[in-house]
Amino acid sequence: MSVEIDGAKLLANLQDLGKIGLTARGGLMRVAFSQADLDGRAWVAERMRQLMDVRFDPAGNTIGLYPGLEPALKPIALGSHTDTVPDGGKYDGALGVLAALACVDALAAAGVKLRHPVEVINFNSEEAAVAGGTFGSRAMAGQFDPTILEQTTPDGRLISEIVRGAGLAPEGIVTAARPKGSLVAYLELHPEQGGRLETAGIPIGVVDGIVAIRRYVARFHGYANHAGTTPMDERRDALVVAAPFILAVRSTAIVYGIVGTVGTVRVEPGASNVIPGQVDLSVEIRGMDDGVLDTAEAHLRSLANGSGAEFQRISGKQAVASDPRLVQEIESACREIGLPYLRMSSGAGHDAMCMEAITREAMLFVPSRGGVSHSPDEYTSEEQCVAGARALLAALLRIDQRLDAVSDD
Amino acid sequence: MSVEIDGAKLLANLQDLGKIGLTARGGLMRVAFSQADLDGRAWVAERMRQLMDVRFDPAGNTIGLYPGLEPALKPIALGSHTDTVPDGGKYDGALGVLAALACVDALAAAGVKLRHPVEVINFNSEEAAVAGGTFGSRAMAGQFDPTILEQTTPDGRLISEIVRGAGLAPEGIVTAARPKGSLVAYLELHPEQGGRLETAGIPIGVVDGIVAIRRYVARFHGYANHAGTTPMDERRDALVVAAPFILAVRSTAIVYGIVGTVGTVRVEPGASNVIPGQVDLSVEIRGMDDGVLDTAEAHLRSLANGSGAEFQRISGKQAVASDPRLVQEIESACREIGLPYLRMSSGAGHDAMCMEAITREAMLFVPSRGGVSHSPDEYTSEEQCVAGARALLAALLRIDQRLDAVSDD
Repeated sequence: MSVEIDGAKLLANLQDLGKIGLTARGGLMRVAFSQADLDGRAWVAERMRQLMDVRFDPAGNTIGLYPGLEPALKPIALGSHTDTVPDGGKYDGALGVLAALACVDALAAAGVKLRHPVEVINFNSEEAAVAGGTFGSRAMAGQFDPTILEQTTPDGRLISEIVRGAGLAPEGIVTAARPKGSLVAYLELHPEQGGRLETAGIPIGVVDGIVAIRRYVARFHGYANHAGTTPMDERRDALVVAAPFILAVRSTAIVYGIVGTVGTVRVEPGASNVIPGQVDLSVEIRGMDDGVLDTAEAHLRSLANGSGAEFQRISGKQAVASDPRLVQEIESACREIGLPYLRMSSGAGHDAMCMEAITREAMLFVPSRGGVSHSPDEYTSEEQCVAGARALLAALLRIDQRLDAVSDD
Repeated sequence: MSVEIDGAKLLANLQDLGKIGLTARGGLMRVAFSQADLDGRAWVAERMRQLMDVRFDPAGNTIGLYPGLEPALKPIALGSHTDTVPDGGKYDGALGVLAALACVDALAAAGVKLRHPVEVINFNSEEAAVAGGTFGSRAMAGQFDPTILEQTTPDGRLISEIVRGAGLAPEGIVTAARPKGSLVAYLELHPEQGGRLETAGIPIGVVDGIVAIRRYVARFHGYANHAGTTPMDERRDALVVAAPFILAVRSTAIVYGIVGTVGTVRVEPGASNVIPGQVDLSVEIRGMDDGVLDTAEAHLRSLANGSGAEFQRISGKQAVASDPRLVQEIESACREIGLPYLRMSSGAGHDAMCMEAITREAMLFVPSRGGVSHSPDEYTSEEQCVAGARALLAALLRIDQRLDAVSDD
């Protein structure tokens, strides 16, 4: 009996999980650690239990294990997350978890076991809404920073209390770390969250890396004064100095082939009748190539400094390259089942980025209609969802057969 | 004995009042209705009592009355306010009240009574920090809107409770209204809060009017999307559309000879990793000529609409012309005592603007160093403060003699 994705079941699961945390306005509110998130995770765990052994690790990750034929081999893991941003959609994360489940379902329905065990992982708290993002995968990869537990959310709640409220022991989270080499590989299917696949009319993206992210604050100086009594030629208006820089971030990103965004503006003192005395812009740039980012950063710093502004880096995440062997196998798998693919980088961070610290990882993308994500409007067609699951399964089967050539660590 | 301002006493009073509410950082915190404001007002009332009868009206205004020779004549009033913006300076408001007091002090020291009674008014809550500004003068002029009592401050306190906490009966405030014609005139000395007098090197500004103020919100639309995964050419970034408009407000103001300010920016959703989906800018324009403001407004609306933005007026205050006869008398008074003056409009609202509803009004300005106001750095030199008080006194003496020509209403 052939191993085939049950598309109807996958789509029904997507619809059913998409009802948990649904608001009257049509958005999903399964923010990490909330009751709706816990309900969603419980629903997934129940589906897992029908196929495999399920355990919960100390970071709140749900891990299902489908046994393999060769007990000495380490598992191949498939996964993603089921928490959402506030007012999110039903594909981001959920699709990857349910497609992973559909792969194991296909094996079980065909009575097939692979050489390797297969894990399905529903990572805890991937979105940055509460505890900085990739909470569960970071912990599993041994990269959890316990000081985050002492931080508070914007509405003043202590992260450690939120974690405890969701049934986890804050002091135990670091013990979720798994040793390097405890998995053969980690694969993740995810909506693209951009418009390249849709524009190209191609169903599968094979992700060769996750971009580096650098964040800055550009601080512009003026002199806060009375907006009625200060003539135009005597003003030092920080916002008037900052406005061209907003446009320069965009043009710089275009010139260097990266993305660049000013997402927040803070005006001091911030009153309609006071000339802005100080303006802080958040600046974010993302790209695969550190050298290009260095040059773009130097250009932006020079522009800012030329306007008397400070330009300070506040965070940076290195780019993460996918495992080249996994990328090749995914591409071969797509060709095997006749699905066109596009090799591309991911502009967003994902659990896979963290898992790279302990195993080979690579990702598959499916199209996002209109490039929309983190929105109730995000959408991937039924056909595209099923195609993505089929590609994931084909890659799993191929990797199971071929990864002997590479040391099993 | 000649009637002369006691400059040393005026300056000592300014220094002494400037210690009430002084913070460690050097700014004044006599925000209306606060204990420091009440302390400042009590200090002024005590100084008044040494020269005249003092009463408190139901709006919290302090009114000192220095009797005149002709009991049938209505008073000439001089005044300003002693509340400050948060972290303000010691001249804005206080100088006008203490200069008025110095005028009466000069009369009393010389044993002189004028034909008209003289009032010194310390208006309550002129700054917009708490209850919308010109609280006391608005009430005295019969323009108080009681619905403001049901509003809350940004930190969530009900205005009526704040008013009550300062010892006033909220329901009684409207009874502070005085009938039209109950005063002969109202004169107010105030720092310019701009840099024109300093630039021109002229000690006195004679204010021929207070500008009209119009406020708008310009709302720019984009599409909030992922800042990492959305390519530059697929973005609709509301902030990138709004940035040129910030510059256009400035250039429009320059072209039309008015002032124009974008003082606040609100970015939705406002995260460093999300493309701005909506941006609200506050836009304020001020000028003396309604026709010019109409044209500038139409230009800005057309620019905003051309970018797909809405441009909505949220408030408007008419320009208030000073009484031409008072302006002439003040100018004559300045010539009499040999003080150069510049006729100018006021870019800021003042208590005088409200008083126009019930009496003739005009204002005198003294220079503000660097045009700075609403700041601990605001400064008017000792010589300039005394010159302003001398001009106020000369105007008072002249008006007392000459206003018989105009009906006493």
